[in-house]
Amino acid sequence: MPISEFDLIRRFLQHATAQREDVVLGIGDDCALLDMPPGRQLAVSMDTLVEGRHFVPGADPAALGHKALAVNLSDLAAMGAEPAWATLSLTLPGPDSAWLESFVAGFSALAAIHNLQLVGGDTTRGPLSITVQVHGFVAADSALRRDGACPGDGIYISGTIGDAALALGLMQSRPKTPVPEALRLRLDRPTPRTMLGRLLAGKASAAIDVSDGLVADLGHVCTSSGVAARIEVGQIPVSASAEGYLEQLGWRPVLAGGDDYELLFCVPGDVEADVVTSCREGGHRVTLIGSVEVGAGVSLVYPDGRVSRETPAGFDHFMDT
Amino acid sequence: MPISEFDLIRRFLQHATAQREDVVLGIGDDCALLDMPPGRQLAVSMDTLVEGRHFVPGADPAALGHKALAVNLSDLAAMGAEPAWATLSLTLPGPDSAWLESFVAGFSALAAIHNLQLVGGDTTRGPLSITVQVHGFVAADSALRRDGACPGDGIYISGTIGDAALALGLMQSRPKTPVPEALRLRLDRPTPRTMLGRLLAGKASAAIDVSDGLVADLGHVCTSSGVAARIEVGQIPVSASAEGYLEQLGWRPVLAGGDDYELLFCVPGDVEADVVTSCREGGHRVTLIGSVEVGAGVSLVYPDGRVSRETPAGFDHFMDT
Repeated sequence: MPISEFDLIRRFLQHATAQREDVVLGIGDDCALLDMPPGRQLAVSMDTLVEGRHFVPGADPAALGHKALAVNLSDLAAMGAEPAWATLSLTLPGPDSAWLESFVAGFSALAAIHNLQLVGGDTTRGPLSITVQVHGFVAADSALRRDGACPGDGIYISGTIGDAALALGLMQSRPKTPVPEALRLRLDRPTPRTMLGRLLAGKASAAIDVSDGLVADLGHVCTSSGVAARIEVGQIPVSASAEGYLEQLGWRPVLAGGDDYELLFCVPGDVEADVVTSCREGGHRVTLIGSVEVGAGVSLVYPDGRVSRETPAGFDHFMDT
Repeated sequence: MPISEFDLIRRFLQHATAQREDVVLGIGDDCALLDMPPGRQLAVSMDTLVEGRHFVPGADPAALGHKALAVNLSDLAAMGAEPAWATLSLTLPGPDSAWLESFVAGFSALAAIHNLQLVGGDTTRGPLSITVQVHGFVAADSALRRDGACPGDGIYISGTIGDAALALGLMQSRPKTPVPEALRLRLDRPTPRTMLGRLLAGKASAAIDVSDGLVADLGHVCTSSGVAARIEVGQIPVSASAEGYLEQLGWRPVLAGGDDYELLFCVPGDVEADVVTSCREGGHRVTLIGSVEVGAGVSLVYPDGRVSRETPAGFDHFMDT
């Protein structure tokens, strides 16, 4: 395959996303050149999706383009950062213009929503793999870190939890079970909560996006912050589509399922009412599911009164991904 | 393989490189948080190395760690930017602590020389592949772009050209030919010319690093700048190790071989003497190999007087990689 075909891919990608004024030089030179706004910190995150590991061979390329960017935007959301630029390294078995057009359509549609410009990257030949790095801005001392949770803070979650894990479980079940469209979209086309993250910046005490699973990710916050958490399992919001399955399957998809890309965040008591009001006025569904406590580990209080205590060492058992 | 083994890798990488004061938050949260110096632009570049494409299975992991970072630093050099931060996405068939220790040793030794901190990335399971993004700073309007060459500029090259291509050619020759250590090191452990690039920032009119091959990369500069170039082939500097092979093999490894990661740059006549003096005072070998002319394409003037004209469409034939 002549390298010029990959050059064509590069030219194709060059105009695929928003054109921002702070991009001095985009795709096509040795580096991209970017202007940072004064007084802001740069937030960066990089994630890789590998065929056979993060998605099945033959997966819809438009959904892959969306998801490869979405999982990274979700990291910016969890930091309270405003998205700005992305780089993309695409490793492809060979040039396939139909695949590529569809991939770019998925990627650029999501990029447009977030006013994000693709500014560089690499295109190589090899087993299908997608690496994206996102770059965003956050005001100094306003970023949502994992290490700021304090005893007494309320623990909140955005949206609903468990949908993506249920979709994956149904897709993998034998005999094959039909997957409701609403659940499948939650797995294939996650919505990064960047507007909510930006609203919480400087207000929430800690945040993380739910990618590994609710208990595992809450565990990361507890470990980083040196605190414990108590969760009322019955308060965790589940979607109408998920409810029926939970009666069959129990709480595991909600507690351990990953890939929801909702925000889990902690809010100090003195600003709790204000923060919740501004979230809801901004159109964001947020739900109080527990509280931060002194100690270590996560306590799960089930609706029947049973309490299970998860130690940090045990969080990994709650990871499905 | 439990994900916690990959967590161990992350913790291992966390302290592998320089700790910089402008890193507000490094590895371990949803994003890294970085402080940009005022009045500088951010330069970013991302490159991927794939097993079987860019290196052979079983390649020395220390050399891979070095090269994965070096090819990216070379892009910062070609832009005149000062290295600051890197992110690394490592896709591994499985955790292999000996391999990883060696890879990180190669990566971090080069990072230390350039005062570069690893601030984030991803670790996934799959076919061996390494993606690195580097981030550097350059004063506004000082970056070395590809599009600034003007007729009359002198064309210069750093170091020597052809060593890496000769090493690769010898490694791949049948029957097997021993590869001189000096050539092998040039292929496996390229030296990114970041100090030279920073010295040229704001002075050279255009620059590129020689990764695809001298004619191909010069062709990129000519196309971007809308100019032609005339090269005296006999003036291109070759190493003592390479000289003997060139008598056998001709000029092809010098003109078409990639992977040298030297800087090719253009200098306007009015500052040429000053620039060359400061390069040499800085300990950098730089050689005048031709001049920028009106027109398009690259003319190669061989020592025997023969002239070959390469059009932009033909540059790709000079690419070996």
